[in-house]
Amino acid sequence: MSLLVVGSTAFDTIETPHGTQKECLGGSSTYFCLAARLFTSVRLVSVVGSDFPAEHRRTLESRGIDLAGVETKTGKTFRWHGRYAADMNSRQTLDVQLNTFGDFKPKVPPSFRDTPFVFLANGSPGTQASVLEQMQAPKFCVADTMDLWIEHEKDGLLALLRRIDGLIVNDSEVKQLTGKSNLIQAGRAALALGPKLVIVKKGEHGCFVFSNFFHYALPAYPTETVVDPTGAGDSFAGGFMGYLANCQSISTWNMKRAVAYGTVAASLTVEGFGVDRLANASREELERRYQELQQFVASA
Amino acid sequence: MSLLVVGSTAFDTIETPHGTQKECLGGSSTYFCLAARLFTSVRLVSVVGSDFPAEHRRTLESRGIDLAGVETKTGKTFRWHGRYAADMNSRQTLDVQLNTFGDFKPKVPPSFRDTPFVFLANGSPGTQASVLEQMQAPKFCVADTMDLWIEHEKDGLLALLRRIDGLIVNDSEVKQLTGKSNLIQAGRAALALGPKLVIVKKGEHGCFVFSNFFHYALPAYPTETVVDPTGAGDSFAGGFMGYLANCQSISTWNMKRAVAYGTVAASLTVEGFGVDRLANASREELERRYQELQQFVASA
Repeated sequence: MSLLVVGSTAFDTIETPHGTQKECLGGSSTYFCLAARLFTSVRLVSVVGSDFPAEHRRTLESRGIDLAGVETKTGKTFRWHGRYAADMNSRQTLDVQLNTFGDFKPKVPPSFRDTPFVFLANGSPGTQASVLEQMQAPKFCVADTMDLWIEHEKDGLLALLRRIDGLIVNDSEVKQLTGKSNLIQAGRAALALGPKLVIVKKGEHGCFVFSNFFHYALPAYPTETVVDPTGAGDSFAGGFMGYLANCQSISTWNMKRAVAYGTVAASLTVEGFGVDRLANASREELERRYQELQQFVASA
Repeated sequence: MSLLVVGSTAFDTIETPHGTQKECLGGSSTYFCLAARLFTSVRLVSVVGSDFPAEHRRTLESRGIDLAGVETKTGKTFRWHGRYAADMNSRQTLDVQLNTFGDFKPKVPPSFRDTPFVFLANGSPGTQASVLEQMQAPKFCVADTMDLWIEHEKDGLLALLRRIDGLIVNDSEVKQLTGKSNLIQAGRAALALGPKLVIVKKGEHGCFVFSNFFHYALPAYPTETVVDPTGAGDSFAGGFMGYLANCQSISTWNMKRAVAYGTVAASLTVEGFGVDRLANASREELERRYQELQQFVASA
């Protein structure tokens, strides 16, 4: 089934111990799309400025991503500039220019409104909710969020959580959201806020999945070369939602498999700067890593 | 088969957000023994002072631990005093009094010298090597170490690594030992130093196992109540070695199962102060957690 994502498109300037890349294609929805397109057809709702080049459109369109929901506004595309610490586990945002993304009001084209799978990438809870209001009857809707919204728009976020099926957050965010310092307690508490599924990302330590029917822990793919962690979380979400949208049913086992595909999609992303590694990945490559990951965690 | 452990016995004063416990029974070998005795017969080589009470001897002996190798010296037993941060992930050592442990020269009783499974708990590489010289022909010998020895006795440690079968270390130690900041690279590099097996403990994030035949990642048991993390690593080692000593062969699958038993032994330890929780655990309780852990990581 088809999959809709609503989120940012950006130019990222990224500094890591491996070097600096200026104004590469980025944004949450871009990473998401490039992972999800390996499994299913993807519809993108986003906004770019008049400086967004045809070359980047082609990168996305040539991979089957439907850009009918990408609005081009006068002005510049969203820009982000960040620097990673030597261990790649923490980063500093050096500059943010929201530009045309600043007052992003997602417009879901009529042809997209029946999309059964929906991913609301990081954005204000109000903006995320405005997308839901434009959709007909999504079958499975998952959202991301961040510390900013947990701190400043908690009520809106809590209202959103009662309307969605799944939440994907990182470990510090779920602790902040629930006020629990133990991650297992935090995951359970997040479930109680509404979503049927809570996925907690732990970076190099993998992820936890909480639902009322099963709990699941999956380590990260054992990557030896981390060049640029930007977009790993959105690639994870893209692999997860893309795989699931392509399944016959949203069963426990399909969700577990989807989490593993999200994990290997993220492992590709971090091996290169920006979206390059992911954009050039094939389904076969993803399958090989999926099998390797299954071997890595194969239990007694 | 029987299992020998050489390491410290101590009185620990422990401060955590859950309270303070003064002078409780502790030490690396104590936690190790109390986990391993759930699987096999354990022989202890350690040293205590004349202040070591009969009550603690009974705690160990009544659980089948052979204390023939525990030397009682005039003076006081080793004392340690530590305080854990609110998140339980870091701790500060407030006081160490080595006392009778200060010049510990392990003496393996003649009746212990044929023990096939040997664990060298944290100690100087020279002291650890002196144990090997007293053993006849151990079948499987594993050692722990720490930052102090990696920094100050690197040559001795490297010599030891060429003589043992397995190394159990934490993530920061294996990075320090190998000079690799990526954990997968560090694990492989540690293997190249001699041991056939390297287990890297990552605390709440579980562990990685490296060998030339398989790599394995296992998340931690999803503990909701961490009261005192002291001894978790030694309990892990005890569960691992105890289970393995009781197996017919040291196969890949038995090693993976042993890692899971080590993981659940550690999960019991952290739920109470000191050794109390572990000392009162039954094999049945451990089995239940083992099954829960297998469910938690059961993949697609």
